[in-house]
Amino acid sequence: MLVSDISEFDLIDKLSCVLGLENERRERDLRASGFDVFVGIGDDGAVWEDISGVKVLTTDTLVEGVHFTLNHSDWHDLGWKTLAVNLSDLAAMGAIPLCSVVTLGLTADIPVNGLLDMYKGMAEISNQYGGAVIGGDIVKSGVFFVTVAMYGRALKRHKILTRGSAKPGDKIGVTGHIGCSSAGFHSLTEISEVNYTDDIQHLRTAHFRPKPRINEGMLLVRHGVRTGMDISDGLIGDLMKLCQSSGVGAVVRSMDVPADQYLKRSYPKKWLDFALSGGEDYELLFTARPDIVQKLAGENDIDFSIIGDITSGISKVRVIDECGRDIDISKSGWDHLASDKNSIK
Amino acid sequence: MLVSDISEFDLIDKLSCVLGLENERRERDLRASGFDVFVGIGDDGAVWEDISGVKVLTTDTLVEGVHFTLNHSDWHDLGWKTLAVNLSDLAAMGAIPLCSVVTLGLTADIPVNGLLDMYKGMAEISNQYGGAVIGGDIVKSGVFFVTVAMYGRALKRHKILTRGSAKPGDKIGVTGHIGCSSAGFHSLTEISEVNYTDDIQHLRTAHFRPKPRINEGMLLVRHGVRTGMDISDGLIGDLMKLCQSSGVGAVVRSMDVPADQYLKRSYPKKWLDFALSGGEDYELLFTARPDIVQKLAGENDIDFSIIGDITSGISKVRVIDECGRDIDISKSGWDHLASDKNSIK
Repeated sequence: MLVSDISEFDLIDKLSCVLGLENERRERDLRASGFDVFVGIGDDGAVWEDISGVKVLTTDTLVEGVHFTLNHSDWHDLGWKTLAVNLSDLAAMGAIPLCSVVTLGLTADIPVNGLLDMYKGMAEISNQYGGAVIGGDIVKSGVFFVTVAMYGRALKRHKILTRGSAKPGDKIGVTGHIGCSSAGFHSLTEISEVNYTDDIQHLRTAHFRPKPRINEGMLLVRHGVRTGMDISDGLIGDLMKLCQSSGVGAVVRSMDVPADQYLKRSYPKKWLDFALSGGEDYELLFTARPDIVQKLAGENDIDFSIIGDITSGISKVRVIDECGRDIDISKSGWDHLASDKNSIK
Repeated sequence: MLVSDISEFDLIDKLSCVLGLENERRERDLRASGFDVFVGIGDDGAVWEDISGVKVLTTDTLVEGVHFTLNHSDWHDLGWKTLAVNLSDLAAMGAIPLCSVVTLGLTADIPVNGLLDMYKGMAEISNQYGGAVIGGDIVKSGVFFVTVAMYGRALKRHKILTRGSAKPGDKIGVTGHIGCSSAGFHSLTEISEVNYTDDIQHLRTAHFRPKPRINEGMLLVRHGVRTGMDISDGLIGDLMKLCQSSGVGAVVRSMDVPADQYLKRSYPKKWLDFALSGGEDYELLFTARPDIVQKLAGENDIDFSIIGDITSGISKVRVIDECGRDIDISKSGWDHLASDKNSIK
């Protein structure tokens, strides 16, 4: 069996099973020395507690030809985005970024000035959101890639967001607006569909310079939310992962999915596809009890929408239209989009 | 200018200059909150101090076609080696490994069972040396690569090994024996040169399953050694980096370079080339005052050789033969070997 024959979820499950069996002794040793790992493989980041508090380590990569092309990307923006996707992983745990190390996999034809601009982009975003680059490694590679590992801290042991704690009856929330990023990416190759220049600019900015929701993640945790992840692979795909980790199902009301005027104006027929399955939004997807959601509604510093409910059906995610009819997400455009972008094919 | 026109050292210098200028405010903020980075870009790992002590974060990558080929590597050994090179980075700081996250850049044709064996290899080495894998990320890539970021702790703020503190008058030391790894790699393609099967096995084991010198790094630090790095790019190449970081020169006596009987027997004419410039030894290269070296000589748990002296000539590394004559390392075979393997071409 090749990795192209298996889902990412199943592969991660098999790999963590190997480590779980083999690492037991080592983990016991670590715990005995006061180092307690309590969120391991399968979440947005790994989390442990030591005498100084709760720490988070996460890693994310952008590969040329898969996550970006040098034809379309500005180097400065590429630097911004490589850190943004890692900052978003920390936001998805409700954690605070501290520092990071960067691995550059370089082909011979990469321009030095491009890399310098990329590092300026990294410095710009870490000045705003944290996670300053303090080290790294350079290797020769057949494909250009940038991997970042980012280290941060959480407020307390039980004050983090994980994927595995959603419960039937929880409301499903999403911060900000979604769909703009993938529409912006789409507009790069299909420009004739879109008429408004300012709108295109807005969509592309969402794609190239996503804003990590660090403050939003911390506010969610402070208000009692405990289940969350960031939307990198598309709302439906990521909600499925969350449901699989939690052993629950979900119903999403398509009319409550937050899309902004720029997206709706630019793609009046396709905006919902982008919002449901486009991906690379880096907004936070969370679930919480109704009373916690009510408290959150009184918080001025977080912009969010409630888009549906967690149900007891295991791993079954439904999307319904304004008449309550099921939208078939298994055969629809967005499922293909998601699979095209995210499976290891 | 492309990255193929510049040395790795110069590229790192330029990149860290960008970050240094741009990150100043953020670093001040971090320090104000008790998070003090005191070894940054350019060493084996990044080091900071917080209220719980001194912490180290390092990252290293193996890329298919650059650092290994699937024709020659056993998957289990590949898993061992991906963690070994990161454990070696921590050993090179005199630090203790705690945990790590793994990024898999996967092409579609990678077999799932291969990855499972690779993770068994990772679990085996982390059970012996630490650095248990607790998370990671999987991405699609045009080239198969494995990046590891490893987190560890050091004994105290000033009890670490760095590259920038060598002083004229220091002795130059190397742990264990060197050259076997690159000879083992060489033997894979030029088998007819070697006659002894057990010797080949020994050389290849050195290449595929290097032993990280975690205990040796800690013992060096405990005995007062403060300058060191691991030998990944070849003794001479790495000594040059150390001298460049410290603003000193070095003289190495070729007859004191430690090579074992297996290497000398297998390659009677070429053993010194492998030992001086082969690379991937993952032994520790260190410098220390003569009185510290004398104390170290009484320590049973560390096997090391003194191979030369640090001098005051800036960044000039000489190798002399048993008659005191200079060996020309600029034009010799080992320089080519090193450049072939390590430059970003």
